[in-house]
Amino acid sequence: MKSVGTLAVVGATGQVGAVMRHILLERQLAFDRLRFFASPRSAGTFLEFDGHQLEVEDVETADLAGIDYALFSIGATASKIYAPRFAEAGAIVIDNSSAYRMHPDVPLVVPEVNPGDAAHRALGIIANPNCTTMIAMSPLAIIDRLFGLNRVVAATYQAASGAGRAGVAELSAQLERPNLGALTFDGGAVDFAPPVKFPAVLAGNVIPLAGELHDGDTSEEEKFVNESRKILGLPDLRVHATCVRVPVFTGHSIAIVAECQTPPEVGRLVAELDRHKGCQVVDLPTPMASTGIDPVLVGRIRLDRSSTNGVAFFVSGDNLRKGAALNAIQILEMLLQ
Amino acid sequence: MKSVGTLAVVGATGQVGAVMRHILLERQLAFDRLRFFASPRSAGTFLEFDGHQLEVEDVETADLAGIDYALFSIGATASKIYAPRFAEAGAIVIDNSSAYRMHPDVPLVVPEVNPGDAAHRALGIIANPNCTTMIAMSPLAIIDRLFGLNRVVAATYQAASGAGRAGVAELSAQLERPNLGALTFDGGAVDFAPPVKFPAVLAGNVIPLAGELHDGDTSEEEKFVNESRKILGLPDLRVHATCVRVPVFTGHSIAIVAECQTPPEVGRLVAELDRHKGCQVVDLPTPMASTGIDPVLVGRIRLDRSSTNGVAFFVSGDNLRKGAALNAIQILEMLLQ
Repeated sequence: MKSVGTLAVVGATGQVGAVMRHILLERQLAFDRLRFFASPRSAGTFLEFDGHQLEVEDVETADLAGIDYALFSIGATASKIYAPRFAEAGAIVIDNSSAYRMHPDVPLVVPEVNPGDAAHRALGIIANPNCTTMIAMSPLAIIDRLFGLNRVVAATYQAASGAGRAGVAELSAQLERPNLGALTFDGGAVDFAPPVKFPAVLAGNVIPLAGELHDGDTSEEEKFVNESRKILGLPDLRVHATCVRVPVFTGHSIAIVAECQTPPEVGRLVAELDRHKGCQVVDLPTPMASTGIDPVLVGRIRLDRSSTNGVAFFVSGDNLRKGAALNAIQILEMLLQ
Repeated sequence: MKSVGTLAVVGATGQVGAVMRHILLERQLAFDRLRFFASPRSAGTFLEFDGHQLEVEDVETADLAGIDYALFSIGATASKIYAPRFAEAGAIVIDNSSAYRMHPDVPLVVPEVNPGDAAHRALGIIANPNCTTMIAMSPLAIIDRLFGLNRVVAATYQAASGAGRAGVAELSAQLERPNLGALTFDGGAVDFAPPVKFPAVLAGNVIPLAGELHDGDTSEEEKFVNESRKILGLPDLRVHATCVRVPVFTGHSIAIVAECQTPPEVGRLVAELDRHKGCQVVDLPTPMASTGIDPVLVGRIRLDRSSTNGVAFFVSGDNLRKGAALNAIQILEMLLQ
């Protein structure tokens, strides 16, 4: 693998930025120079990296010359402004936000699934999928290759960290309230502070609403439908999703029923999933077990007897790693090979 | 409504037994005499009811003569032994366990859905559905009546109290561990006691395994499939379920996609759900909002664009009330009318 040259991490102070810094060290990526960027609010602080203190530069005012690659995790609004500036200054941008994912000239890439798409980056920008979509892509790509995907029905179990540090802080504060067990008989038994980041109290609860509603579906559900089609290269794939937030810190999970063109064979599927480096087949996939590791955990693999060629499974994956930081760095590694 | 005569609550010291006692008072059911029973281990204690202290009788040794109705919530193993004894002694037994639900001579009844079935009780036993199945029955019965049900795909979000007091205690103890937020970056960051009631730590986690596995599906999933068919009177209904435990104290929720024979109309469905006394249509159904109230909360009602005649919704209901104690008492009220 060749050296990155100059690598920028944009949104370095954020939650995904922190995981990116961690994984860059973990994977010992070689670069000549590393630069950290953040919004004006967070710029000027220092972040430790491999024993060195690096000043965080202001993404608004910094000189962008000489950057070869930029890993962006700074939110869609900021990405729309700054990703083109980095790209125009010569960097290849790998953007973790939703800003460019469905842009026809921006590839949306999971290296284990559609590596070839990365070449068609007319804007100099490659998009990283939504953290929930990501978790499902490797198993669904394998099912499509083996049996041909017709339809996907998904119900998600999404962690608070998918909503950033503020989501984690809100859940943490709620879980510190005393006597949560009083909720067993009375849903109003505990006096929580009014929720801000989520539309209801998340501790001791589940919330079937993530993002904004458009014509019945949420933006999170639309992302799952549209991004799955683009990554899998199946523009007409029939997909239904219900996206639900659960009181988990990290690790998104999805219960999936996949309807296929030919009869699925569980044994063959398990063998192919096991061979795939992005997946690990386990008896009991849970978000807690998936937190801090690279592969997604796939289990409860069984035939769906309610459809002709259906197969069901449950998948859990670390939304901050494979769902965000790791996949972006894997795209970068792929470009360097 | 006529008086119950002599009413027995069997399993009166348990979690559902406690809710039964609460609801009996709440609904001011008239009876001549109330008797509490429990297993030998819990017998001999006293329970307060409407200002009186009642001694809990030993279900093994008590004289069962003169009991008119018996509300059982004592577990399947005990129900298999004692429900026939109460029935032989002349009581009509309403049993909350799984022991008799699929018995061909035992009706499985949700009063708002299949009240007529209660008449065919050859054994003197009427069964109360599983708490997860129950939550889905009213909305699915309405969809079947309006549009004809072809297939149901369900993913559940089940509360710890569905596993009894021990489930609640295990979740409570786990939530008291300090610094749960450390799970954000490391799934092993918190030193939990080994789980006993659930197959993994439930706090900060979700567990896609409830009950025992048979040929890929769990006993909890089989109950959902088989009991739905029996209650809805659709023995060939195609049903798929994935049952998942979530760190919620009370309130089971289900994300459901229903495929129909005729095109579903969301407006008509909302109107019919709203008119039904077992349901309340809300924007955001959550288990916390459903805890302590009688109706199930139905929301996120929308067309499923991935199937020809699909409609999707999310439902939350109190698994201890409508899912258990309330439904049993509603059956009793129905028999008295």
